[in-house]
Amino acid sequence: MTAAESVLAGDRLALSRLLTQVENGTESGKATLDSLFKHTGHAHLVGVTGAPGTGKSCLVSQIALEVRKADPALQRSVAIVAVDPSSPFNGGAILGDRVRMRDLAGDPGVFIRSMASRGALGGLANATAGVVQVLDAAGFDLILVETVGAGQSEVDIARLAHTTIVVETPGMGDDIQAIKAGILEIADILVINKADRPGVENTERALRVNLELGYPNGGFHTFIEAGHASQDAASPSLDADVWVPPVLKTVAIESKGIAELVQTIREHREYLVKSGLLALRDRERLNHDFEVLLQERLKQDWLKTTDPSKRDEILSLVFDRKLSPGQAVERLIK
Amino acid sequence: MTAAESVLAGDRLALSRLLTQVENGTESGKATLDSLFKHTGHAHLVGVTGAPGTGKSCLVSQIALEVRKADPALQRSVAIVAVDPSSPFNGGAILGDRVRMRDLAGDPGVFIRSMASRGALGGLANATAGVVQVLDAAGFDLILVETVGAGQSEVDIARLAHTTIVVETPGMGDDIQAIKAGILEIADILVINKADRPGVENTERALRVNLELGYPNGGFHTFIEAGHASQDAASPSLDADVWVPPVLKTVAIESKGIAELVQTIREHREYLVKSGLLALRDRERLNHDFEVLLQERLKQDWLKTTDPSKRDEILSLVFDRKLSPGQAVERLIK
Repeated sequence: MTAAESVLAGDRLALSRLLTQVENGTESGKATLDSLFKHTGHAHLVGVTGAPGTGKSCLVSQIALEVRKADPALQRSVAIVAVDPSSPFNGGAILGDRVRMRDLAGDPGVFIRSMASRGALGGLANATAGVVQVLDAAGFDLILVETVGAGQSEVDIARLAHTTIVVETPGMGDDIQAIKAGILEIADILVINKADRPGVENTERALRVNLELGYPNGGFHTFIEAGHASQDAASPSLDADVWVPPVLKTVAIESKGIAELVQTIREHREYLVKSGLLALRDRERLNHDFEVLLQERLKQDWLKTTDPSKRDEILSLVFDRKLSPGQAVERLIK
Repeated sequence: MTAAESVLAGDRLALSRLLTQVENGTESGKATLDSLFKHTGHAHLVGVTGAPGTGKSCLVSQIALEVRKADPALQRSVAIVAVDPSSPFNGGAILGDRVRMRDLAGDPGVFIRSMASRGALGGLANATAGVVQVLDAAGFDLILVETVGAGQSEVDIARLAHTTIVVETPGMGDDIQAIKAGILEIADILVINKADRPGVENTERALRVNLELGYPNGGFHTFIEAGHASQDAASPSLDADVWVPPVLKTVAIESKGIAELVQTIREHREYLVKSGLLALRDRERLNHDFEVLLQERLKQDWLKTTDPSKRDEILSLVFDRKLSPGQAVERLIK
């Protein structure tokens, strides 16, 4: 059997080996990824992001447990990808996995993979995209990608994921300013974890005020609890298909609020399918992957036909501020 | 006079107009930027990043006041660029500017510019790079770029800036985990603002522990206060040119610790010049700009010679999962 065939047959060892190849960007990994591509497109991808200390890892484990428990007949399988771009500075990924293993160990329907940055952040995002593709092809129904809220990873994960969950906790700064607006923009579902802590009302209020500013026509108070907008007599121009991110409260360590969260993920997927957004996002992502590879390939081809000394000569004019980068490109192309 | 000549002559109205053009990516803006390029490369660029609520705006204003006050003979001019990718969600940029205007108003040696995202985060980073280039050419000695700590802006600013300052406050979570490791990696100087608040010792300890993990050979305790490494008898293999990010404490609203911070920025610049890193980083940045423009140009040229229907046809095979993005590029190029 080829590596691809072994992975499709459910061989976990082959899967782990392939993921390592894809992470390292080897040629054989890329070739296997290409051959597996036709088997992708079935998994639902959920991104979970938030600052360190919000309890993301615990929440992700609880979602996996709930999905496995709630639907035993369907036997939905779950993959967890923990992305930790901070590897030089802490051992969070390893510790998080140990805690998880205790809860999820022995369940053959759950697969856990940790990824630590080995340098460039951009490289990590690409490697994550490849890992998710492999897991999708391998037949996992739900793929949970967990990222620490640092650097550019949230934005990249949001492009990758069908549903993005942003996790906050009470007391992270109780005024509106303290809510990271850039992250709110990518959220499909907002979760206040550790919701048994003091200050949860302030955090909830701050999130809702921010959401109201972001969705001024959202008929907000009517829909926010339900997690999606429906027709509102007071604002007849409202598009019934607008998804307003719901704010959910959880205490992951006590499994509280998890069933509701899983139900909301399900509703968000239904919304994406019905509105046509699932297909649209899928196409946008594939188009983006295509454009990136095309640009890279065109540059490689061009480099082969161009005298490197000519290129270095023109670049040194840029370094000396005699040509702008744009002018240098013009001169080289002509 | 051309727009470029007016800007070089110190015309502030012409400067504001050009900045708007560059922000909007107009063709005439790009042309003027190209013609100004030979006047760039003199300003020192300082990035200031941190979560909302850390008092970044106040700190940046105080740095500007201190630089203007400390060195009247040199008449160093200062530009402030406030980047707020969160415009749909709050009015922070405008409020911050009002507070600033009160302190800095009437000083012709200070120029303030707010930038709010009009959509894509990537676009904002590019626009910021252009704005900084214009201000550099216009003769500002110090350019302070302030970003809210959300999304990918920190990483992009770090590539742009010579000195990156990361601002924390006490009580943002007192354990090591709560320090955003990804942000520590980009810091040249760490500032604990609002250092009169309770919990400052815990925050300082957490930052130092993280730094020790990041700079295991840094001869840490000896050098950290001074802000740069020097020869250490206990670790003779230590490179004397390693910069270990110093941890400074400020109370910006009372102007406390600002003189020390400005002095540390000055020391960091000296370190960059002496070690050759200033020239190296400058070249890396220009090379990056060149590569991005080259790839874009090669794609545009290729699109002109390629039948769009052929491209759409192959892309639809990708959407149907019959070809991987990589295989599609291969087929199109051949």
